[in-house]
Amino acid sequence: MGEGVLGVLGGMGPLASAEFMRRLTLLTTAERDQDHIPAVLWSDPRVPDRTAARTGGGPDPLPWLLRGISGLEAAGCGAIAIPCNTAHGWFDAMQSATRLPILHIVDAAAEELARLGVPGGPIGVMGTAGTLAMNLYQQRLQGRGYTCLVPEPAEMQALVTPAIAEVKANRVTAAYEPLAEAARILHHRGARAVVLGCTEIPLGIAAGPALPFPVCDTIDALARAAIRWAGR
Amino acid sequence: MGEGVLGVLGGMGPLASAEFMRRLTLLTTAERDQDHIPAVLWSDPRVPDRTAARTGGGPDPLPWLLRGISGLEAAGCGAIAIPCNTAHGWFDAMQSATRLPILHIVDAAAEELARLGVPGGPIGVMGTAGTLAMNLYQQRLQGRGYTCLVPEPAEMQALVTPAIAEVKANRVTAAYEPLAEAARILHHRGARAVVLGCTEIPLGIAAGPALPFPVCDTIDALARAAIRWAGR
Repeated sequence: MGEGVLGVLGGMGPLASAEFMRRLTLLTTAERDQDHIPAVLWSDPRVPDRTAARTGGGPDPLPWLLRGISGLEAAGCGAIAIPCNTAHGWFDAMQSATRLPILHIVDAAAEELARLGVPGGPIGVMGTAGTLAMNLYQQRLQGRGYTCLVPEPAEMQALVTPAIAEVKANRVTAAYEPLAEAARILHHRGARAVVLGCTEIPLGIAAGPALPFPVCDTIDALARAAIRWAGR
Repeated sequence: MGEGVLGVLGGMGPLASAEFMRRLTLLTTAERDQDHIPAVLWSDPRVPDRTAARTGGGPDPLPWLLRGISGLEAAGCGAIAIPCNTAHGWFDAMQSATRLPILHIVDAAAEELARLGVPGGPIGVMGTAGTLAMNLYQQRLQGRGYTCLVPEPAEMQALVTPAIAEVKANRVTAAYEPLAEAARILHHRGARAVVLGCTEIPLGIAAGPALPFPVCDTIDALARAAIRWAGR
């Protein structure tokens, strides 16, 4: 498609990648269509469930992820953003399969935390069971001076996991209260900010009143990283 | 990308095509990611302005539109939806360049009008100056028993055209009142429903209170046509 085109490997879930495209547009300074960032969104919701693959021996999503990356390469994209945190468990395999830079969502979240005035210290991380089991945030943020607090297994089972499923089934409003409760618990345990480290979570959190502490929306974080990549 | 994949030729404008992806997702009956419709969105906001090409001798958008269609064909899509009404002024040239069916947004709007309980009679059509000058709706809907009322040139200049530009510059809230006023005028002149026949217009209209008469949102209409195409 030409230089400066963003490739978006999405569909995981599809509402999150649509919202990513919306935020990419709304966060870009523009006066007319032609000022916006060209992008190709490969929205493939058929990619096997990432958490099931990591925690329950479900089918491997990697061949599907690599097919999407090839499609975005063929379309002429110059970089890739993946608005799904759990898919970053396959980051190294994806990055070694393409010459295009992949913007890492955890690095984007760290930039967003700094922008929110939380440059280090204890933070909460909410995500899928797969993301938490892989220590995706814990490993990558520890070198940046953050300590990650995550929900207890019982809180995952009662609050976070069912709420993520509600969003994937388009019942966004039903997801608000359990997600807000899980975030409040992490804040009470000492988190200075809470990372919404699954792209379904900000969709649920946006369906109700704002939380009274900083939250790092990983859809916005990745959109801002893409806008920086595009030099806008 | 495989059978049953929807190609979306978008970026005209980018907020409208992101919203199309959102509505496609929210209007699909689904319990998990894998129930949703796979899609590739080619969001190219660099396509030259369609209205300027039609009414002011601006650069021809057709080569850009055809390049997007080739990209969607190469990605393996099975049909194409174009969430930009004015681009349908080049429908015949696009359709003759591809073996993929292109879902026509005016046909989608007619289906939506019927669903809203307005199977014929006088309707209002709001759109870009390009869409109205091409008689896109007037010609295609007349055979279906509709008579189209459109804004007067002074109303286009004072209300509709500047409001569409506000949406393209991300100032969605500022677009509500002028668009609502133009719709009210058409309703007062006898329109039984008003077609929001530019995909920026529903974004502005959604930013304020609902109008007290039926409106046909062409983003929703095209999303429903795509869901029918996918057999969901």
